[in-house]
Amino acid sequence: MNKSLSLLASSIIFSSSLYAQTAPKNIIYMIGDGMGPAYTTAYRYFMDDANTKVVEPTVFDSILVGMAHTYPDDDTVVTDSAAGATALSTGTKSYNGAIAVDTHKKPLTTMLEIAKQKNMTTGLVATSQINHATPASFASHNESRRNYDEIANDYIDNKIEGKLPADLMLGGGTKYFIREDRNLVDEFKAAGYSYSDNLAALDKLEKLPALGLFAPVGLPFAIDENPNRLEKMTKKSLSLLDKHKDNGFFVMIEGSQIDWCGHANDIACAMSEMHDFANAIKVAKQYVDKNPDTLLVITADHSTGGLTLGANGQYRWERDIIKGVSASAETIAKKMLESEDLETIWTQSTSLPFEKSTKLLLEQAKSKGNKTLAQVIKSRISEASFTGWTTSGHTAIDVPVFAYGQGAEQFIGSQNNTAIADKLISFIKQ
Amino acid sequence: MNKSLSLLASSIIFSSSLYAQTAPKNIIYMIGDGMGPAYTTAYRYFMDDANTKVVEPTVFDSILVGMAHTYPDDDTVVTDSAAGATALSTGTKSYNGAIAVDTHKKPLTTMLEIAKQKNMTTGLVATSQINHATPASFASHNESRRNYDEIANDYIDNKIEGKLPADLMLGGGTKYFIREDRNLVDEFKAAGYSYSDNLAALDKLEKLPALGLFAPVGLPFAIDENPNRLEKMTKKSLSLLDKHKDNGFFVMIEGSQIDWCGHANDIACAMSEMHDFANAIKVAKQYVDKNPDTLLVITADHSTGGLTLGANGQYRWERDIIKGVSASAETIAKKMLESEDLETIWTQSTSLPFEKSTKLLLEQAKSKGNKTLAQVIKSRISEASFTGWTTSGHTAIDVPVFAYGQGAEQFIGSQNNTAIADKLISFIKQ
Repeated sequence: MNKSLSLLASSIIFSSSLYAQTAPKNIIYMIGDGMGPAYTTAYRYFMDDANTKVVEPTVFDSILVGMAHTYPDDDTVVTDSAAGATALSTGTKSYNGAIAVDTHKKPLTTMLEIAKQKNMTTGLVATSQINHATPASFASHNESRRNYDEIANDYIDNKIEGKLPADLMLGGGTKYFIREDRNLVDEFKAAGYSYSDNLAALDKLEKLPALGLFAPVGLPFAIDENPNRLEKMTKKSLSLLDKHKDNGFFVMIEGSQIDWCGHANDIACAMSEMHDFANAIKVAKQYVDKNPDTLLVITADHSTGGLTLGANGQYRWERDIIKGVSASAETIAKKMLESEDLETIWTQSTSLPFEKSTKLLLEQAKSKGNKTLAQVIKSRISEASFTGWTTSGHTAIDVPVFAYGQGAEQFIGSQNNTAIADKLISFIKQ
Repeated sequence: MNKSLSLLASSIIFSSSLYAQTAPKNIIYMIGDGMGPAYTTAYRYFMDDANTKVVEPTVFDSILVGMAHTYPDDDTVVTDSAAGATALSTGTKSYNGAIAVDTHKKPLTTMLEIAKQKNMTTGLVATSQINHATPASFASHNESRRNYDEIANDYIDNKIEGKLPADLMLGGGTKYFIREDRNLVDEFKAAGYSYSDNLAALDKLEKLPALGLFAPVGLPFAIDENPNRLEKMTKKSLSLLDKHKDNGFFVMIEGSQIDWCGHANDIACAMSEMHDFANAIKVAKQYVDKNPDTLLVITADHSTGGLTLGANGQYRWERDIIKGVSASAETIAKKMLESEDLETIWTQSTSLPFEKSTKLLLEQAKSKGNKTLAQVIKSRISEASFTGWTTSGHTAIDVPVFAYGQGAEQFIGSQNNTAIADKLISFIKQ
């Protein structure tokens, strides 16, 4: 298997479209928020079949083509998700916090807007609120990612030649769409959108345009609830978009919460998000197999947490300990705050022994509240699995770039994040 | 420049040899020991011209083609340099510590040995002792990397069809080659090798076979002495090999001490090693430009130190602080131990202010000796520059793969480290 791995990769990349000059008809753009190379590497070892000698390659391995530079146009080389998404959606770097505006706060045209100008069908899918930084940078413009209400407004006010920017939106965010001052859900309905707030009834969304908001803010972590919610939303999106592809479609699908677990330094949480994202990629890849005029491009906006596989001088990374964790540290902490029986919750939630030192640490932390308690839980898991973290924020490491389908060969090599957008925009404009 | 970056990369890769079925005549294989993706990323920001808006791509960026999986055949996913080099030299994964032997401690044929069987000219170049794990895994076989004397013996005893394995060796290691029990230098001379122990007189090595040992063990850190010693040795090697390429040549050139600075968690030290390695790559790339039948492949055996660009919640990585450091922490500490005037040494060696807290920390550490003192110096530099580290050892993150010249396209994508060896061996066998 070792021998064939990269030949496989090359052959897949080049199979259908060696130096295709023809632009792909449809574009599926997937962004793993915070998904630096330590995450894609970790996921391979996390998923490894222990019964075989080789470590099985993942879906990421089958379509890796390069890496991207993520620095913003700011006084730092470390980007935030807003500047990262702005670069990836417009081809222009901007300041941290910018939502599709340049350093002078002037709106930048996004590839979704250009797709809409070209009468393509457009979509946004995320596990965060749908007006969070990454999707926001495709369909709205704002000087600050924090202006969530204004960004949500843009999804209906930001008309592109009289049309709403996105024909499909799936994610969280009812808090921002159903407000005292304005009920955007009613406005979307009036504009002809189907609406659902029930992820379990996702199948009932049968036509576009459509809006699905499945949580007040972000969806729950995959490790805590609905572990395959992004895979499901991806399947539904592609089936809906497939019905409206006369002029082609553009969809951005974000694995939003890889980043959130990274910020939390919660490795089990991060691996569950990676698994949902990987399965969503498999769905997208299968769509390309059936529709070879489609291009799938996947990257990350930055890496989060300073994750390392191995820590404290030990040449080990114990994925079995991570596999043994069944909830986010936040949720484990919540349960512990509501119970006297820390041992039962600990042994139900992790595969680690309930040692005296652990007991003592948890009891001390419990008195300080959820945040401290979650911190202790995560630290124990990180220490036992030799998972390293250096920050609650982002890092500047280059991120992997994956591509599959028509035009994929254009993304081979090391490139600026803006170059990814430039190439996609040039395809959309053709 | 952003727009053209990856097109440039693709065009370079494919310019001369689209799907070349013909094997390259000569192979230059360069290994950045410990050079994970955080190092190649860091080097770009370290080298950035502050007078331009864009961050200039590096020589690495111009030839990136993929990434490699580094796990050993051991009870861990984190490799050491011996298992890493064995995979990269033989195409077979082995246990940590193995020098070109399999998990049963049985010798594995290396690509250098195959090259010698094919009457190619062969060489090894390193900034470590030349019998250190990475070069060792190309020309010797041992159950343990620690058996330095036995490994050095192999360089003359390990006959390949009656011939010595390497026609050229440049690095450190007199301690292991001139011993009480055996003087290998005399033996090499008797076998017709030119010998030099003077890096300054490297030009005087005018013919092969040749042995150059320029330090008792490893060469001094680039930041402390001879910042361009690998570049020089690379230039000399290629000029010597070029004269003996009737049957082609194979050379492995290692940037050995990127890893050592990583183990030390010394970022300024690491960036100097990266610079020397990058300049050596430029020399090799120029050789390929003049000799398009040559293949240049570059990768790392693993990443070291758990380096991250950004730390402690800050979205910053301050390369100017790192650029302001003029010696390794080890050397700064040594100077401080020999002096009463810590302030002068501090301000001569770093661009950081000599604050009261720094003074106090240094004075306390000084009484505890070189190691503690060096630790305090490095910590101050890491903290001030927001450089993160998680370990004194290695991590499992995938490493970048670079290729240029004839056959480079074979290395595109995500691949096992053994697949890199397999492809090179298949070229050598043709």
